[in-house]
Amino acid sequence: MTRAASSASKGKAPRTARGEKTLRKILDAALAEFGQRGFHESSIVGITSRAKVALGTFYTYFDSKEAVFGALVRDMSGRVRDHVAPALEGAAGGLDGERRALAAYLRFVADHKEVYRIIDEAEFVDPAGFRAHYETTANRIAGRLAAATDSGEVRDDGPLANEVRAWALMGMNVFLGLRFGVWGEENEDKVASLANDLVQRGIKT
Amino acid sequence: MTRAASSASKGKAPRTARGEKTLRKILDAALAEFGQRGFHESSIVGITSRAKVALGTFYTYFDSKEAVFGALVRDMSGRVRDHVAPALEGAAGGLDGERRALAAYLRFVADHKEVYRIIDEAEFVDPAGFRAHYETTANRIAGRLAAATDSGEVRDDGPLANEVRAWALMGMNVFLGLRFGVWGEENEDKVASLANDLVQRGIKT
Repeated sequence: MTRAASSASKGKAPRTARGEKTLRKILDAALAEFGQRGFHESSIVGITSRAKVALGTFYTYFDSKEAVFGALVRDMSGRVRDHVAPALEGAAGGLDGERRALAAYLRFVADHKEVYRIIDEAEFVDPAGFRAHYETTANRIAGRLAAATDSGEVRDDGPLANEVRAWALMGMNVFLGLRFGVWGEENEDKVASLANDLVQRGIKT
Repeated sequence: MTRAASSASKGKAPRTARGEKTLRKILDAALAEFGQRGFHESSIVGITSRAKVALGTFYTYFDSKEAVFGALVRDMSGRVRDHVAPALEGAAGGLDGERRALAAYLRFVADHKEVYRIIDEAEFVDPAGFRAHYETTANRIAGRLAAATDSGEVRDDGPLANEVRAWALMGMNVFLGLRFGVWGEENEDKVASLANDLVQRGIKT
């Protein structure tokens, strides 16, 4: 099952490639609708008319406006991960990988400025999804730092250190994305290098 | 004029100490109401009944629910600043000051968990206030880093470096506060020391 397909409400996952394509259209339309109007001003009709599908088609896949919003949060969270993951390949080491990941993230948010509105509004509309997004992301970073600690690249400062570092790195990335991706643009490799220089010197052995 | 007094709607600032006290009660009640119910579910009557003031009293100071929300964002932003500023006094240097500031911030958010809901919901209810809060905070940190660069404590890596570092530090602090102040608690001095160790090694000369 593709990520889009698995985002449908319970028992409503599409069973054909055509259904998956329709579901993808609904998610893209939901991103535009929620991103521009916010959750409260958005409507299911707004989503279906952007997606050019019938109202009934929406209910084939989702139970409610809340359900499609929650699905969109998981979808965006997964899209960020999928966009950033390839950047980690071919890095000179774990910490160089974090630099590449940040540069890829800055590029992604500059191209998808709505991502902040969606994830941030989840704090109010879908608090469990909001928390899951950040805990999953922090755990992923902490796992990479643990591997870099094992390989001797990152200092071993006890069990709490890599968790603190993971939340610190995630926070850096989120706010650098807000400042240098959403609110203003700046060469992403330059910003990523400056931030990563701080991180590398900060935690390398 | 006190900070609370200056948060009233235009032409509605209190002129007496008693008026200022009433305004403070309304802001505290607004914090409880918006913090628990969120902006959309909150009402002016909810605020006045928590504050135990008449509905007319609310309109003596504020024009609308949006106006008191915007005032609350500025008030919380100022309270965070006022709580953190004394921690900077008596620091061993600029970077030690950042450690003390983070520890003070973690204590503040553990005691005022609603602060995240208020500032974060401002992205949707009062976008200009939201952006002003973070730009002001980042500028304050960048100013401290510039002073530490001048004194030779922080490396001079060109004009963009301290702006990137300021947004990186702010993001670290916000996410460490979310993880170790709002969602779970941990010894704040320990968390601040681990994070500050990264920063000190990362940017010192």
